[in-house]
Amino acid sequence: MVRIFKKSSKMVGLPPGALVHVGDEKTAEVKITVMDYDEAQFQEREVRSVEECVPYKDKPSVTWINLDGIHRVEIVEALGKSFDLHPLILEDILNTGQRPKLEDFSGYLYIVLKMITYGDSNGAVKVEQVSLVLGPNFVISFQEAEGDIFDPVRDRIRTAKGRIRKRGADYLAYSLIDAVVDNYFVVLEKFGEEIEDLEEELVSEPTSDTIQDIHRMKREMIFLRRSVWPLREVVSGLRRGESPLINKETAVYLGDAYDHIIQVIDTVESYRDMVAGMLDIYLSSLTYKMNQIMKVLTIIATIFIPLTFLTGVYGMNFHFMPELGWRWSYPIFWAVSAGIVIWMLFYFKRKKWL
Amino acid sequence: MVRIFKKSSKMVGLPPGALVHVGDEKTAEVKITVMDYDEAQFQEREVRSVEECVPYKDKPSVTWINLDGIHRVEIVEALGKSFDLHPLILEDILNTGQRPKLEDFSGYLYIVLKMITYGDSNGAVKVEQVSLVLGPNFVISFQEAEGDIFDPVRDRIRTAKGRIRKRGADYLAYSLIDAVVDNYFVVLEKFGEEIEDLEEELVSEPTSDTIQDIHRMKREMIFLRRSVWPLREVVSGLRRGESPLINKETAVYLGDAYDHIIQVIDTVESYRDMVAGMLDIYLSSLTYKMNQIMKVLTIIATIFIPLTFLTGVYGMNFHFMPELGWRWSYPIFWAVSAGIVIWMLFYFKRKKWL
Amino acid sequence: MVRIFKKSSKMVGLPPGALVHVGDEKTAEVKITVMDYDEAQFQEREVRSVEECVPYKDKPSVTWINLDGIHRVEIVEALGKSFDLHPLILEDILNTGQRPKLEDFSGYLYIVLKMITYGDSNGAVKVEQVSLVLGPNFVISFQEAEGDIFDPVRDRIRTAKGRIRKRGADYLAYSLIDAVVDNYFVVLEKFGEEIEDLEEELVSEPTSDTIQDIHRMKREMIFLRRSVWPLREVVSGLRRGESPLINKETAVYLGDAYDHIIQVIDTVESYRDMVAGMLDIYLSSLTYKMNQIMKVLTIIATIFIPLTFLTGVYGMNFHFMPELGWRWSYPIFWAVSAGIVIWMLFYFKRKKWL
Amino acid sequence: MVRIFKKSSKMVGLPPGALVHVGDEKTAEVKITVMDYDEAQFQEREVRSVEECVPYKDKPSVTWINLDGIHRVEIVEALGKSFDLHPLILEDILNTGQRPKLEDFSGYLYIVLKMITYGDSNGAVKVEQVSLVLGPNFVISFQEAEGDIFDPVRDRIRTAKGRIRKRGADYLAYSLIDAVVDNYFVVLEKFGEEIEDLEEELVSEPTSDTIQDIHRMKREMIFLRRSVWPLREVVSGLRRGESPLINKETAVYLGDAYDHIIQVIDTVESYRDMVAGMLDIYLSSLTYKMNQIMKVLTIIATIFIPLTFLTGVYGMNFHFMPELGWRWSYPIFWAVSAGIVIWMLFYFKRKKWL
Amino acid sequence: MVRIFKKSSKMVGLPPGALVHVGDEKTAEVKITVMDYDEAQFQEREVRSVEECVPYKDKPSVTWINLDGIHRVEIVEALGKSFDLHPLILEDILNTGQRPKLEDFSGYLYIVLKMITYGDSNGAVKVEQVSLVLGPNFVISFQEAEGDIFDPVRDRIRTAKGRIRKRGADYLAYSLIDAVVDNYFVVLEKFGEEIEDLEEELVSEPTSDTIQDIHRMKREMIFLRRSVWPLREVVSGLRRGESPLINKETAVYLGDAYDHIIQVIDTVESYRDMVAGMLDIYLSSLTYKMNQIMKVLTIIATIFIPLTFLTGVYGMNFHFMPELGWRWSYPIFWAVSAGIVIWMLFYFKRKKWL
Repeated sequence: MVRIFKKSSKMVGLPPGALVHVGDEKTAEVKITVMDYDEAQFQEREVRSVEECVPYKDKPSVTWINLDGIHRVEIVEALGKSFDLHPLILEDILNTGQRPKLEDFSGYLYIVLKMITYGDSNGAVKVEQVSLVLGPNFVISFQEAEGDIFDPVRDRIRTAKGRIRKRGADYLAYSLIDAVVDNYFVVLEKFGEEIEDLEEELVSEPTSDTIQDIHRMKREMIFLRRSVWPLREVVSGLRRGESPLINKETAVYLGDAYDHIIQVIDTVESYRDMVAGMLDIYLSSLTYKMNQIMKVLTIIATIFIPLTFLTGVYGMNFHFMPELGWRWSYPIFWAVSAGIVIWMLFYFKRKKWL
Repeated sequence: MVRIFKKSSKMVGLPPGALVHVGDEKTAEVKITVMDYDEAQFQEREVRSVEECVPYKDKPSVTWINLDGIHRVEIVEALGKSFDLHPLILEDILNTGQRPKLEDFSGYLYIVLKMITYGDSNGAVKVEQVSLVLGPNFVISFQEAEGDIFDPVRDRIRTAKGRIRKRGADYLAYSLIDAVVDNYFVVLEKFGEEIEDLEEELVSEPTSDTIQDIHRMKREMIFLRRSVWPLREVVSGLRRGESPLINKETAVYLGDAYDHIIQVIDTVESYRDMVAGMLDIYLSSLTYKMNQIMKVLTIIATIFIPLTFLTGVYGMNFHFMPELGWRWSYPIFWAVSAGIVIWMLFYFKRKKWL
Repeated sequence: MVRIFKKSSKMVGLPPGALVHVGDEKTAEVKITVMDYDEAQFQEREVRSVEECVPYKDKPSVTWINLDGIHRVEIVEALGKSFDLHPLILEDILNTGQRPKLEDFSGYLYIVLKMITYGDSNGAVKVEQVSLVLGPNFVISFQEAEGDIFDPVRDRIRTAKGRIRKRGADYLAYSLIDAVVDNYFVVLEKFGEEIEDLEEELVSEPTSDTIQDIHRMKREMIFLRRSVWPLREVVSGLRRGESPLINKETAVYLGDAYDHIIQVIDTVESYRDMVAGMLDIYLSSLTYKMNQIMKVLTIIATIFIPLTFLTGVYGMNFHFMPELGWRWSYPIFWAVSAGIVIWMLFYFKRKKWL
Repeated sequence: MVRIFKKSSKMVGLPPGALVHVGDEKTAEVKITVMDYDEAQFQEREVRSVEECVPYKDKPSVTWINLDGIHRVEIVEALGKSFDLHPLILEDILNTGQRPKLEDFSGYLYIVLKMITYGDSNGAVKVEQVSLVLGPNFVISFQEAEGDIFDPVRDRIRTAKGRIRKRGADYLAYSLIDAVVDNYFVVLEKFGEEIEDLEEELVSEPTSDTIQDIHRMKREMIFLRRSVWPLREVVSGLRRGESPLINKETAVYLGDAYDHIIQVIDTVESYRDMVAGMLDIYLSSLTYKMNQIMKVLTIIATIFIPLTFLTGVYGMNFHFMPELGWRWSYPIFWAVSAGIVIWMLFYFKRKKWL
Repeated sequence: MVRIFKKSSKMVGLPPGALVHVGDEKTAEVKITVMDYDEAQFQEREVRSVEECVPYKDKPSVTWINLDGIHRVEIVEALGKSFDLHPLILEDILNTGQRPKLEDFSGYLYIVLKMITYGDSNGAVKVEQVSLVLGPNFVISFQEAEGDIFDPVRDRIRTAKGRIRKRGADYLAYSLIDAVVDNYFVVLEKFGEEIEDLEEELVSEPTSDTIQDIHRMKREMIFLRRSVWPLREVVSGLRRGESPLINKETAVYLGDAYDHIIQVIDTVESYRDMVAGMLDIYLSSLTYKMNQIMKVLTIIATIFIPLTFLTGVYGMNFHFMPELGWRWSYPIFWAVSAGIVIWMLFYFKRKKWL
């Protein structure tokens, strides 16, 4: 099941800015990797402690610090202190129940994203919170677990493919957002296939599981929608270029990402409409089948109940029943029965039940 | 049942500003507590009369006057007079049917909040109105009954934990609002659990109570929604910082509270969608079950009604029925019956009723 | 039945500003009362002719002219001429199919309100149009029938209770609007009780009347909504204080009335949601009952139809039926029957039909 | 059936401004009438050719040229050329699939209206497009067929009743729009009556035609809505007084027409809600009836099927059935049967099926 | 089936601006045609390579380069480079999953349109993406396959019909957009016919296919809606005339195209409402039919089950059954049976089941 609501009762009663990890512990170890590059050089390494990251803060080259696993509160706190992050931001990074949002602090931007992956086995959707902090020449990304959706970005940095090595930290942040958005397309594609399967099942052989599947799809749509809608405002806010951290040229690329998000929203809305329609069809086809069943029952009962009455009549033991002794009674009985059957069938034919 | 509508016919015909308590009397005694603090010192006491509060009005340290129980109109009136509150505000404090709202008077802000608690026994939601008056260096809070959701704030003041002792009355007001909002998360969590239970029940064993539960949930969602939506505007209004009473630094914290409210609204909307969907599933699964029941009936009737007709035929007492005397009639009858049964089963198999 | 639409085909083809009374004649006689007051003095009298009102027009004290019964077109016309009202306003006063609205003419404001009363006997809602003209020092009110909802205002003027005698005509107009809004609360309370009764009925003993009642409630909600929504804009318009006729202090009181209207709208919307939900429950519980009925039928039929077939078999008159002569046939028949019954009951138990 | 969509595939591939008549030919002959008036004089005549209209173009008195029948493209074209109308306007006049709209060209305004008439015989609604061109001192109106809804306006011009002869061409245009709006009230009244009839039918004796009628009403509401909604913007645009062609005094009257349109929209929306509700009631009452039917069947079957089994038992021909020879077997059988019936009736009574 | 979602997982992980064709390969060969014209001359030819197009870039006459088939990435890329198009635009041209949009780059406008054609055989709708690049004196159009909807525009250029040869590239772009919009009318007309057929089928003879057809229509409406809604903003953006590339005179024509789009949207919305209503009617009429079926069954069963019980009674073999020996038993039995039947029929008549 998709959990709509992250339990955050842990936090009730704490002062604002108190640092508590809210969410599942998705990875055992916390892993910090640093990539530092400019057009000329490139350096990548895994660091053991937060202190090793500090020198990169004021280095003119672009630095990307990636942290996989946020359940070790003290590490996030240390990193926050080193880079002068506001305590409320650290609280939000640790609380995985955030909506996508953009916050503009003096000196850096804070961006929350939701990364969605399609669970392979039972079809449930998994969600992971990605926080980005964009400074003048660094990006810090916080992920709940080690993932592979940022790998293409890493590859582009390593191989200096595309423009990424020639541009600043804002372009790196854009690339990461774009990677998250691209991933929605993969999820939507899977959803699309599942909807098609469900529609086929609905037409051919609806079972009581079908309604469960439709319901599950509906819930996942609700969930997906909640993740994507606010993302639109995030990218729209970045793109408007009010922050000096965002280069004008990068804004053009953010416009492209914005278009992609609109496409995702569009598709989610269309899927929602389609799934909603499936429920009506399910109910209609159940009622249609019921009609078919009732017709069979009614035809059988209507034909045989009067005949059975007739056999009952001549099964009575009254002493004085003249018909019993007649020579042609039995053949006449069959003839009358056949007549009733034929007349009934004709009647049902006319009523279009047959 | 959640009462959507507080009876306020008591008030009809009264001039505006007339002071009448509208609502249930939730506590026997009215209790007034005063906390007065600044960074250096801290003082807490329960006062007997309103007059004891007056000296705090112009004291430079931050004063929090909390009043539990608003049914004693004269006490509220006396307090209002001492602190120069507008009669319309006093009327609103006493009338517990208000929506959350923010009103800006010269010299102070008036804030209405709705505090929601989840009734333990029968699952009904209880609601309490909390009114806050924020002056330059004091906060007056009015509660319908003595509650414990402000206890963490009191603790923080007592122990000087967090920033609260270093900041002004606006931060205190924020802390109280934050405590109310935090409490919504607790209620939502309970709702979430109830929805999950209900969904499980719906799948496994729906009864006629299920529909009642769904209906109740739906009503409580309507109710919760009404309490939370206007709260958004309240905090948004505070945060915009138009009032000189709100410090710029506090506005950042109010932004955090605003985010929490958006999360609450988001969750309420998702729950509404989910509960609405459950009704459709309930109806669908009832119809599905009906189909199953009708299939059983139809199969039984369709198999046995023709056979019963056949036994009726050979139970008739006509004198001239050649078959009766034949040697193999009875075995042939069984053979024909078995044939009909097999053919019927085959037919139902093909129709996918078995 | 609530009439959604006042027949106004009488007016088709007439030039604009033509004065025709559209609506039911709700009172036999037209009654004009005049109250004239300032802080010092107070005078109240019933006048016979419109001419007697004219002198009050330019008197500095506040004058309230109330007209009960608008079907005598010539009286309204005479009053209109005396006070220089625009012909289109007179047309609107006479046509009781108006929506609540506010119109700002130079020199005076024209306000249309809808007054709703709950019919005692058969539960239908009655509606009356109230028109107010607010001039610099006078208010003219037009009612379709003599009513009692303005009596509290009259009492306050007579007894000089509250602020009313100290304030101008704008405060009087506010008091009248407030009286109309207060009256909505009375109606809503009655609605609330009826909804609760209906819900109880729905749970315990739904009949075919229940659906009629739900439908009627739904229609009355549609109607109530139409009356209240535009009222919001009316009071909001008054309160914005663009007209010099509205004093700034009165605007604060109008803000209070605005809050009340929002509360009414909120409650109407909640009731609408609740009534809409009742229909779904009604349908679901009908289907649930059908399932119960079908189960009983199916259990009975499924148990006895095969047994009846068996009795039919041994009621046949074939000459050669070895079982007929056996000693233990009859006890064995009973044993087999009991076996079938027990097996069926077990089967239904497992299917959770029992 | 109401045609939602005018076939306009004729136009596909033509250059913009190409003149083709799209719509039904509603009248055989094209008729042009000219009314020319000012406060002092009045002249009315039917003209044979477009040329006769030209001199009126620059005459200072107000001229109203009315054209009934627009299928003769060349006449519309000639008139367009004489009065310097833009080719796109001529295209729109001829294409009767337009929505109501207002277009401001330098020198004149172009207004499209939809006139609705209620077909007498089979209840279908008919729609006609009316185009108005308002110049400095002339109005040209284009109707699809000769109608009578403008007759009251003509009468007022002829008899100099009301203000019409004292005002300019803008007041004439207003009068024509007002006549079209007034006509909506007539149609709505008819709809209201039909809805009431339908509701009564729904309660007393729903047939399979009822659903067809509800569906038809629903479609006509969709249609009516499409005609009225954009009209609001048209009148609102005229009234804002941005065009120098609209006198300020006329704007007050347009405000009145605007109010009427809002009333029409309001009523259409209410009707839509009511018709939508009727479908739910229809379905509910069908299901309720089904329950009643099933109860009858189940009661009968449940009482008699076990009894029939009992008669079957004692109709068996086993040689050794001791009960058959007992003296009181037959009376006991009747006693047991009566017992079962009474017990069953008691059971159904308790289940509230009787 | 209408594909709601173009598979674009190919693109995941690629840097922005990477050129990959996403979509079906709808034509075998890529075909480039060039039309170059001004008022005086006209030239049309098919070119083999992109290089041949380059000289037209700076020619003062209007040039229309049309490319059918976009799956040959290198051709699109070459064309893009020759005309200085931004890489993101080339990416969008190749990715056929775009929504209609307008992008303003310095020097040219980029417009995406969706062309819809109604599949003849099985009624499915086909969609094709058309991209336009409008420069100062050229238009480049990209189509997925060779189509004929631009043929009327070509004809008008060839024959110098209408204004097209006298105007600039902006008018050409308008003409192409207008051709796409006109085509929607053709599709809508087909839809309208299909809806009418479906409604007739619904009334006369609904089958289980009907629900499939309604569902398919619903999906196609969702799809059509997605294509048309954003188109509105595209044309509205062009028409506002913020770009120097759009002539003021052309803006008038774009206003006309805008009106057409509004008409299309209006019709799509009406169709959606109508199709949604059809589902309710389908379900209602199924339930109505079920009622009819159940009535037949219940009447038959209710009449014959008690009679069959009676025959069972006198078929019992008790030795002491006095009635068996009576002379008039058998005629009395028939009389009683007839009485029961008549009484039952009377009962059903009163219940209006017959």
